[in-house]
Order: sequence, then C-alpha cells, then structure tokens
Amino acid sequence: MGTNTTPARLREQIRSGKWTGPTSGAATGFVQANLVMLPGEAAFEFLLFCVRNPKPCPILDVLESGRPEPTIAPGADIRTDVPKYRVFRHGQPEGEVADVLDLFDRDMVSFLLGCSFSFENALLAAGVPVRNIEEDKNVSMYITSKTCRPAGRFTSPLVVTMRPMTPEQAVRAVQVTTRFHLTHGAPIHMGSPREIGIKDLSRPDFGDPVEIRPGEIPVFWACGVTSSLAVTAASLPLVITHSPGHMFVSDLKDEDLTLL
Amino acid sequence: MGTNTTPARLREQIRSGKWTGPTSGAATGFVQANLVMLPGEAAFEFLLFCVRNPKPCPILDVLESGRPEPTIAPGADIRTDVPKYRVFRHGQPEGEVADVLDLFDRDMVSFLLGCSFSFENALLAAGVPVRNIEEDKNVSMYITSKTCRPAGRFTSPLVVTMRPMTPEQAVRAVQVTTRFHLTHGAPIHMGSPREIGIKDLSRPDFGDPVEIRPGEIPVFWACGVTSSLAVTAASLPLVITHSPGHMFVSDLKDEDLTLL
Repeated sequence: MGTNTTPARLREQIRSGKWTGPTSGAATGFVQANLVMLPGEAAFEFLLFCVRNPKPCPILDVLESGRPEPTIAPGADIRTDVPKYRVFRHGQPEGEVADVLDLFDRDMVSFLLGCSFSFENALLAAGVPVRNIEEDKNVSMYITSKTCRPAGRFTSPLVVTMRPMTPEQAVRAVQVTTRFHLTHGAPIHMGSPREIGIKDLSRPDFGDPVEIRPGEIPVFWACGVTSSLAVTAASLPLVITHSPGHMFVSDLKDEDLTLL
Repeated sequence: MGTNTTPARLREQIRSGKWTGPTSGAATGFVQANLVMLPGEAAFEFLLFCVRNPKPCPILDVLESGRPEPTIAPGADIRTDVPKYRVFRHGQPEGEVADVLDLFDRDMVSFLLGCSFSFENALLAAGVPVRNIEEDKNVSMYITSKTCRPAGRFTSPLVVTMRPMTPEQAVRAVQVTTRFHLTHGAPIHMGSPREIGIKDLSRPDFGDPVEIRPGEIPVFWACGVTSSLAVTAASLPLVITHSPGHMFVSDLKDEDLTLL
C-alpha cells in the first residue's frame, strides 16, 4: 500500500477505515484535492469566490446538492473517502470525524480544489529541490497582506506556501508550475517576504519551517488553505473540510491538469 | 471614432445612443465580451455550467445580483453600455432593445464571457490569416455533435467557429491561441468536419461561409454562442444577452488575458 497503489484501492482502504493518515506520497502521480462542503444557499457565492481567486482556489470538481460521487473519481463517495474530515458550525471547529454520512444531506454542495502535491512532483522531476520533502516536513505556509477578491460573505487574506531555491532553480520552477494552472500555477511572489507582509520566514502560520541555504531565495505559491480561512470566516451554520494533509485522492493524473 | 477610441469613450457613445452597431474592430486591443443576464436563482447553475465548460464559456466577470458596474470596466453600466440587447422569456425571443434599464432588477446576475476577437488580433499579429476578417464577413459558426458538460438546467451542444489555414499556420495558431485561455484558448479540433458532426462547411449554422483554399484545413475553436444556446434552452422566465456582434467592450487589454 502507499506510493504505488491505485486511487480506487486507496479510497477503498480509507472507506473501510484501514487508512486513516495523511495522503502525502500515496498513489503518486494522481491528483489530490482540498475538500469544502457547504449548504446550497451559499454555493453560488463560494463558487464565485473560487472563480475570482483561481490561484488559491482552482476548481477541480463541484458536486451539486446532495451528490456524493465526484466526476473526477467515478465510484468514489465524498462522504467516506477522505481519511479525516473537519466540522465547523458557525465558523467554530467542532472536531474531526472519519466520515460525514450523518452530517451530509440533500442540500450540501461539495467543492474539490487543486493542491500543490501535483506540482511538487513535477518540480522534483525537473530537478528543482522541494525542501519540505527533503526534510520530511509539512510545507511552510504564511498568511500574507494580500487580500483575495471577495464574493458575497466570502473573503480572506491570501495564504501562500514557500519553497526556498536558487534564482536559477526559481526560473525553472516558474516554467514548470505555469503548466499546472489547476494546482495553483505559477508563483505569486519571489524574494522579499516583507513585500507580501511576512515578517519572519522561520515562523510560518501553518506547517513547519524549513532551512533556507545561502544563495537561495524564497518562492511563494498561492495555497488552498486560503479557501479554508474563507469558509470558516463566513460563519455558515455547517461547513465540512478535509483535515490538513488528509486529502481526497482522485482518478485524474497530474498531467491531466497541465495547460500545455 | 472606431478603431482607435478608448473603451470608456466607446461605451459613452453607446450609452448615449450614438453608437448602435456591431463592435467588431472598435477599440482595438481591448477585450470584448459576451453578455448573459439571468435571475439570481439560476446563477449557481449557470456559473457551474461555465466552470465545467471553460473553452466555450470563459468567465471574465460576474456581476452579483442587481449590480450594474463590471469589475473589468469601472464606471461602466451593464444595463446601457451594450449596443443591442436580446430579450428572451421562457426561452422565446421577445425582441431587441437598446438598453435594459426597465428589465434589470435587483435580482439579475450578469455574466461577461470571453469572445474570440482577442485571439483574432493575436493571430493576425503572428502572421496567421483570419479569412473572415479578410473577406469582411461574420465568422462561420457550426453546431457540433459534441455535448457540453451539463449543470442543473443548463446543457447545450458545443458550438464552434472555423478558420481555414495551412497545417503550418495551424501549428502557429495552436501556439498563439493557447496563451488566450480566457478567450476560448487552443482549438478543439482540426481537419475532418465530420468527426465533430459538421456535414457541410459551406452551410454554417450561424455567420457566413468563407473560402477554403487548396492545401488549407479547417481549424475549430469553441464559441461563445454555446452559452446563448444553453440559456435559451433552459426556458428561464427572463434572460437577456447581447445581440450577436454587439459586444460589451471592457477596459482589459487583450494581453491581460494571456496565461504565458
């Protein structure tokens, strides 16, 4: 089990409770997704928020009210096939659960949004180092001073991930990640953290700090955590997300998401 | 007036009734858009239809319920700044009007979708011929046998535009239009019309036929008319669109829409 399994077999393991951990590195080469579930009455506003902020919130799939089966994973069930879910009521965390069969009803709309695992594999394949993978840590994430374009009740500061590399590697990283427009695309910033409101790279808001070596610059990509901040800040009666690192694994291959 | 005017001045002429004709070739270099207005209760489904069919329905802007001012054209008024509007009730055409001040209410949501004028300019700049411009005709449009991904009440066959060129020019056209992912992007087909259900290129479903010279192949792009078919087929109580060729002219420059 793990790296070489198929998405369908991995989801089966998750559904039956045999796989409860993070999905990083599992079913390599297949697209993993952030999950946001919310009441139908807020679906237009949230979809519009994603459309207006495609870099942090790239839309992979939308499951209309009450539908449990994603288009990007036929046979899957969005209520059971994520290893760990987070439940929020009126913006407050209520805890984590292994499935949402009890909470999901005919009104809930589910959004699957791209995550950076796809382009990290492509960076490695292109010879660009991914420090958080080298150090076996969670990627460093920061809340920036940049604001997303709001839509209805949804608004959020832009959250970014950071990967340190040489300027030469950064050029290659721009080229490689530009192809992956559905998993955050090209970087949103390189160099000075202060320019985007980050005071101390060694103290990320989420995830772990990583080593920045002499001659390296920080390169910043939009991050899916932005969508989590937006949905919790909106104080909806009920919101369900995946637990960080515990993603939905789809049948799409990383290369299916490339533009070129 | 015309080619060299600014979008703001052109819209002023349109608003005051001095410009009532098609916008092709006006304010060259600025992005023109298809317009769809519909009741708020159908907005989520239609936005989802666009998200699921980004090639025919690339979203440039969405104006939430009752808002008349587009983000992509500050100071403009979507109720008056299109030269000619089409009104549909329960899917049936009711006629054309010069403004929709009477029809627009607090509930109406407006969608501005990319059109092919932007990439036609880029094709010409790259030395690729655009036969419909050479012949001063409306581009040839065809209803294909390909079906869009439905969303709620919205579904439609894919409508395409066709431009004939040599295979060598077609390669260049793929490169050039790939950059314009918000104005239909790369072609959806090249060569045999029958493969996408088109029986006779000399009889387009909309627009005019153009000459296809020896050694040329037809190259097909997704077309914004797809969205018009989808909204009229949905039989909503009220739908307003632009009249074909009479587009909304935004302040965005063509180059603002390029991915690379």
